[in-house]
Amino acid sequence: MKSSEKTPLFNLNTWSVDQLARVEQALSRWVVCPEDAPALAGLGHAMRYAVLDGGKRLRPLLVMAACEAVAGSANAALRAACAVELIHAYSLVHDDLPCMDNDVLRRGKPTVHVAFGQASALLAGDALQALAFELLTPALDTTDAAIDSATQAHLCRMLAQAAGFKGMAGGQAIDLASVGKQLNSSELHEMHALKTGALLKASVMMGAACSQSGPATSIAVQDALRNYGDAIGLAFQVVDDILDVTADSAVLGKTAGKDAAQDKPTFVSLMGLQASQDYAQQLLQRTLHSLAQLEAAGLPNTHALRGLADMLVNRQH
Amino acid sequence: MKSSEKTPLFNLNTWSVDQLARVEQALSRWVVCPEDAPALAGLGHAMRYAVLDGGKRLRPLLVMAACEAVAGSANAALRAACAVELIHAYSLVHDDLPCMDNDVLRRGKPTVHVAFGQASALLAGDALQALAFELLTPALDTTDAAIDSATQAHLCRMLAQAAGFKGMAGGQAIDLASVGKQLNSSELHEMHALKTGALLKASVMMGAACSQSGPATSIAVQDALRNYGDAIGLAFQVVDDILDVTADSAVLGKTAGKDAAQDKPTFVSLMGLQASQDYAQQLLQRTLHSLAQLEAAGLPNTHALRGLADMLVNRQH
Repeated sequence: MKSSEKTPLFNLNTWSVDQLARVEQALSRWVVCPEDAPALAGLGHAMRYAVLDGGKRLRPLLVMAACEAVAGSANAALRAACAVELIHAYSLVHDDLPCMDNDVLRRGKPTVHVAFGQASALLAGDALQALAFELLTPALDTTDAAIDSATQAHLCRMLAQAAGFKGMAGGQAIDLASVGKQLNSSELHEMHALKTGALLKASVMMGAACSQSGPATSIAVQDALRNYGDAIGLAFQVVDDILDVTADSAVLGKTAGKDAAQDKPTFVSLMGLQASQDYAQQLLQRTLHSLAQLEAAGLPNTHALRGLADMLVNRQH
Repeated sequence: MKSSEKTPLFNLNTWSVDQLARVEQALSRWVVCPEDAPALAGLGHAMRYAVLDGGKRLRPLLVMAACEAVAGSANAALRAACAVELIHAYSLVHDDLPCMDNDVLRRGKPTVHVAFGQASALLAGDALQALAFELLTPALDTTDAAIDSATQAHLCRMLAQAAGFKGMAGGQAIDLASVGKQLNSSELHEMHALKTGALLKASVMMGAACSQSGPATSIAVQDALRNYGDAIGLAFQVVDDILDVTADSAVLGKTAGKDAAQDKPTFVSLMGLQASQDYAQQLLQRTLHSLAQLEAAGLPNTHALRGLADMLVNRQH
């Protein structure tokens, strides 16, 4: 049976719209409503401003897609999807601060520190990180259906590792130290594996962790998911570097050519444009190979993971 | 039986020295060794600098004391103690940044951003928060004896709530907005209940959560611990405000009179010095009353919690 015959009705766009509606609604519900606590209104507004109405939500979509592939708990996946997005959102808020990238615009809007001040941006980022872990650990009598303790703990473990020293924060530190330096291929790969790869891979693994039994937990399936997560994390960055030189700023939604202007090492500066484009396609093939392994292990529902990989590698912005 | 007869040999100083030796050793082991990852050495050094060799470690001691009171798992408590301290440490690093309090010295050493730069201080704080949740969720085959999943999830939930929007980060935001304002007593209490109280109370409750069965889980015991935690959190801040006007900077280890100079609302500015001192003693009595309730509920091992409350209220720095 050909892949196209398995999922005749799957449409990534329709699927994404449905998933994103759930994610946006959940984020709006879970990222504090300032009305609850008037003294905290300022912080609450900054947190909501940082999170709502923005971004491609690639990480939440990966969580939901991976959860579908393993037939996991949709309620658990929604919390995981939002938690991962909060970590991503907080990292952007802190990244934009004057002591880091000093960006004043993001997604066409003033960055959080421009809109709310640096101190509020710092605290909003800090509070968003804490909220991510709070979302993953609802009290067992919470009405949106309990996530069992083992899943809660497992999700927290994966997210903490992906966000921290040997994950996103570590990658940012390497990135910071690398400006103006000549990194070799292995150093560039390591930096991105941590800076963006860790959280993208965690999105896949956390989505899959929303099933705690059945084939999802087999070593073969876990390995296939890890390979998919590694490849998609890397592909994301390679394509980002390609678009930085090929897309114009209007399509990209941010300043094109910025990496080169800042003398940041990129896949394109290291490998050249054509080789980077070839590399991105190879990585797409790696994700498809991993999905074939999932199917062979009895998990045929891989269309969303396939669609996201294709979209991510062949996107124009 | 009088309280003094129950614990004839208890010496807070000896007990603290023993506990702190374990905590310091664990922090040094768990807060990343840069040797593991050369590219991450800079971030690792900043994280260790922020955490090791400093502070009274009041929060870890409260965790350990509460765990003793409920005869909980010492291994779980050690992780909880270190996790709470990492949250405290990260908050100080971010608090000291130029966009917040702009402090250049802490505990007699240059602050993290002075020693490592603002960007590294920001990232070190972010990574320390993630590490706190990583410490609470060891893989179940970890050699230092597993903490069961229910305890892991429960500890994460309490720490995330205490650190976030309706906890420490929220309190800092209120504090930030309150400089130069006239707060009334209820607003001042609310600010401190969040800013410092939430994490101190969480220390008590997390220590107690290291026992998942027996009398520790009864409603009466949980209420008594919460009351103790509330009172000790508040007492800590009242005494801090008192010392800001009565102690000299050398004894205090930080600049005395700073609150008044910055026109920050304090218990002393609101109530006066004598009333603040009386209030601190009342709060001490509340902690002792709560401990009597614990004892009545069949948990007699309260001497460390008692000693810490007394030390905290009657400290000179």
